[in-house]
Amino acid sequence: MKEGRDDLLAALEGRGWQSGAAIAASLGVSRAAVWKRVERLRERGYGIEAVAGRGYRLVRDSDLLLPDAIRKHYRPTLLRGEIVHRTTIDSTNRLAAELARAGAEEGTTVVAEQQTAGRGRLGRTWVSPASVNLYASIVLRPGIPPLDVPRLTLVAGLAVAEAIRDSGSFAPRIKWPNDVLLGGRKVAGVLTELEAEADRVRFVIVGIGVNLNAARADFPPELRRKATSLAIAGGTPVARAAFTGRLLTRLDAAWATFLEGGFAALRHRYDELHGLVGVAVTIDGAPPLAGTVRGVDDGGALLVEAEGTIRRVVSGEVTLRDTYRALRRGRA
Amino acid sequence: MKEGRDDLLAALEGRGWQSGAAIAASLGVSRAAVWKRVERLRERGYGIEAVAGRGYRLVRDSDLLLPDAIRKHYRPTLLRGEIVHRTTIDSTNRLAAELARAGAEEGTTVVAEQQTAGRGRLGRTWVSPASVNLYASIVLRPGIPPLDVPRLTLVAGLAVAEAIRDSGSFAPRIKWPNDVLLGGRKVAGVLTELEAEADRVRFVIVGIGVNLNAARADFPPELRRKATSLAIAGGTPVARAAFTGRLLTRLDAAWATFLEGGFAALRHRYDELHGLVGVAVTIDGAPPLAGTVRGVDDGGALLVEAEGTIRRVVSGEVTLRDTYRALRRGRA
Repeated sequence: MKEGRDDLLAALEGRGWQSGAAIAASLGVSRAAVWKRVERLRERGYGIEAVAGRGYRLVRDSDLLLPDAIRKHYRPTLLRGEIVHRTTIDSTNRLAAELARAGAEEGTTVVAEQQTAGRGRLGRTWVSPASVNLYASIVLRPGIPPLDVPRLTLVAGLAVAEAIRDSGSFAPRIKWPNDVLLGGRKVAGVLTELEAEADRVRFVIVGIGVNLNAARADFPPELRRKATSLAIAGGTPVARAAFTGRLLTRLDAAWATFLEGGFAALRHRYDELHGLVGVAVTIDGAPPLAGTVRGVDDGGALLVEAEGTIRRVVSGEVTLRDTYRALRRGRA
Repeated sequence: MKEGRDDLLAALEGRGWQSGAAIAASLGVSRAAVWKRVERLRERGYGIEAVAGRGYRLVRDSDLLLPDAIRKHYRPTLLRGEIVHRTTIDSTNRLAAELARAGAEEGTTVVAEQQTAGRGRLGRTWVSPASVNLYASIVLRPGIPPLDVPRLTLVAGLAVAEAIRDSGSFAPRIKWPNDVLLGGRKVAGVLTELEAEADRVRFVIVGIGVNLNAARADFPPELRRKATSLAIAGGTPVARAAFTGRLLTRLDAAWATFLEGGFAALRHRYDELHGLVGVAVTIDGAPPLAGTVRGVDDGGALLVEAEGTIRRVVSGEVTLRDTYRALRRGRA
């Protein structure tokens, strides 16, 4: 379902009451056709009043993640591909990969109201209730070898954290590599997938899930203490399409900086939002590594101080040794 | 077209003349059905004589890459997946990836008589005429990060070179990372593709093309000086299914060694067949690197001596500075 600019919507926006006859004339259709199309816009989430003798009036923008609505908040410089919207889908990453395989250009973005098989890192699922959160997958085509892809995922994590910071009085913290937390609870995650030759990336799919307006009851019981949303943390709902526009704007800008100067050019911004600095952690592995995080290096590796020496950690699961207390204090 | 063991074939193999009535009785079908199935076997490349009053006789095994025929020469220890045969296909790598995405187990192998869109490295095409060569793609599921995949492609190149050496008096030479040459001309190539999360491989497809019985006229004019086949080099055709069995056997064994001891455990075997050692090369890049190859290291990187120091090359296109003369001399 590719959705272009809707001329009926354009006829209603910012204009108060419009008679059905006037709209029908300007669009060159019958009044019955106008009524049918109003119904369709309502199904897409728009609030449109209809009163006999006065006509129609737009009272509420759609809260759906419609491409038009997102574009109002997004002027990309690099990531110019199409935005593809689905009401429900198995996995936005799956569809984005399918489009990329068929040649979709860099920046092609799949957004969905709901995922029925949302994927998280390491084969986990991503809880994806309908029409409250953001599930987006972006096609990137960087000219890099597969070994550089992990630092690209840090770029995405940074963009998510910055977009959340842009959205109110939030103090998001990144948990390396690319989880984003609010008050020690997970609010967003990034799943980066790639298809490549052994030494050349064909495309990368950056999948981003952000809990925007989910209520506590939208999470399964076992996640309720670990997960949060912007609405839970901030106390008021977030305009989803506007948030998506801000996120894509941040990603577009971070991507340009990364292509120009590598992760080194973003490191200070990452460190500013990094919640693990100074925190005691354990990194899984054989044997596990216990130490205190000192930051990240120019290659995006986590720097962990253990027994007086700094160790570079390229991949692995980080566990906080004091549960989430350290991160909950934050540094804000 | 999955092909199981054929009971008619079993009734004919190694038995000389068999009457149609006897075969029909043993298979529990009509004599007309036997005749129809003989026709189908002939379409699959089997030579079956039919003489009134004597019956049927198998005079020539199929030269098609049929799973049954391959299995006669292949007893895998690790790579136990199904062998899938196609008469014609766009790309064996493409189908293998599709099967892997749907959950195909490690070792699942796609072989084809012909590819209509055979792929080579770096987006190139792989010339894939019908029923003379081998095009095979194997699904691997190693528990490694994407950055380790390049050394896995060296394992495949080694297996191909060893299988060619097993096939007669050939002296194959590997051109790092994984081309295989005979007399300085390319006889085989490996295209390794992967799908992964940023730090975890989901599956790898090892695509192998070996020019077996191609005649010089089967290559486009621009490749005739650069490419060869086992039949051109050795003067006699190669039994294709038997070669495929030998190749998979070598790959299965090398794969086991790699999983056990990493590339380090295969390095001496690789060096034995490596044609670039001592050869003056240029590696593309900005700037290009000119030097003399000294071998590979335990991580599979090419060691190039330039201006008195050894440089590790992880990826890149190697150009021989004396065209292919050096490699043609070989070291055999």
